[in-house]
Amino acid sequence: MQQQTGHTLKAFDEDIDRLRGLISEMGQLAQSAIRESMRCLIERDTEGALRVVERDKEIDRLEIETEKRVVQLIALRAPMAGDLRDAVAALKISGVVERIGDYAKNIAKRVPLLEGSSDIEPVSLLPEMARIATDMVTDVLRAFVERDAKAAVRVCERDQAVDDFYDSIFRTLLTHMMENPHNIGQSAHLLFVAKNLERVGDHATNIAEMVYYAATGDHMVEPTKKRRRKTT
Amino acid sequence: MQQQTGHTLKAFDEDIDRLRGLISEMGQLAQSAIRESMRCLIERDTEGALRVVERDKEIDRLEIETEKRVVQLIALRAPMAGDLRDAVAALKISGVVERIGDYAKNIAKRVPLLEGSSDIEPVSLLPEMARIATDMVTDVLRAFVERDAKAAVRVCERDQAVDDFYDSIFRTLLTHMMENPHNIGQSAHLLFVAKNLERVGDHATNIAEMVYYAATGDHMVEPTKKRRRKTT
Repeated sequence: MQQQTGHTLKAFDEDIDRLRGLISEMGQLAQSAIRESMRCLIERDTEGALRVVERDKEIDRLEIETEKRVVQLIALRAPMAGDLRDAVAALKISGVVERIGDYAKNIAKRVPLLEGSSDIEPVSLLPEMARIATDMVTDVLRAFVERDAKAAVRVCERDQAVDDFYDSIFRTLLTHMMENPHNIGQSAHLLFVAKNLERVGDHATNIAEMVYYAATGDHMVEPTKKRRRKTT
Repeated sequence: MQQQTGHTLKAFDEDIDRLRGLISEMGQLAQSAIRESMRCLIERDTEGALRVVERDKEIDRLEIETEKRVVQLIALRAPMAGDLRDAVAALKISGVVERIGDYAKNIAKRVPLLEGSSDIEPVSLLPEMARIATDMVTDVLRAFVERDAKAAVRVCERDQAVDDFYDSIFRTLLTHMMENPHNIGQSAHLLFVAKNLERVGDHATNIAEMVYYAATGDHMVEPTKKRRRKTT
């Protein structure tokens, strides 16, 4: 095995920092895609929604780019222990960010299906739920860039709020469906939108667990992890 | 960089074969979890569903084990080019199999929520949809073990059938909700079950794309990839 000299060590650090930058850039695209898909949903902006769907390709491209660079990094620098863990974490985190982008795309794809339908009350809760979920993504990617295990734990703790929003919206939508059978199609789409946002919170939690592991070498203990209730 | 001798080459092949075996074992657990969760759903077997939820921990454990072994493999054998691509593919595929296990768990978690409700017609389509989706998982993991790029392409082609089942079940459930407002809660849960199965098909497709890439070094061309319509 290659001995790591001061020179290769520095080169690895530079490479992994660039990788973190790339993943952070992906994360910003994914967050703004969620915000934009929610704006399009609320304002029934079908044109804008199509642009969100189109721009998801850029996130997909960045994931492929990240994977290529991680593989090159491992092949060239032969990182060991903590460095190898960092490289693997980067690979996995970019995969999760790509899926967060997919949720934004899925929300955007429902916008044309809602055209012509009237506003219903649960929609008023969705933007706030989206705001908490995207803030979790922002903060967990900052924790990743800064290798901050404590910040990662704090992100996990906020997932309960997203789950509570989801439960509330689920119940409200079901009641709305019973009272307004002609709105059932719209409500079904909004159920899935709420579910997508709940999954964004879950994925931010997953990233937080990976950041914690990469930074400490230990797995996050159960009580700080999401208390998964996903039964609705 | 370490020169690969005949000895280390053989050791790598043995290690990666063992990894494929481990992922194949995970895949079998995930498939049987989906089949079992569907049986519990149809027979309203709440006890059985709880066992499915409990057994998902074994899949999670195997994913952590796979990741540990991939990292060890890379650190010890310093694989290059195709071998490194294989190792990275193993890591990513085990992550996708873990998510397929999560879908089975999510389906199982809905079983107690359906207790006491009567059978409704769309349920009759769900087991067939589940069968196609789990067969895709079986076949894509066989393609992975055998490094068979052509078999991977054939798996992708079958995802359209899963999507068609989903669209049909979605429409049937919406009609059912309109006609039977008292069954709306049950129907909403079944909407999510159908969505989970549709996602299992998507994930089998994702694995197929990774198998293709690992085996050929090329990305699968668009027309054979899933024609994503996910608008419902």
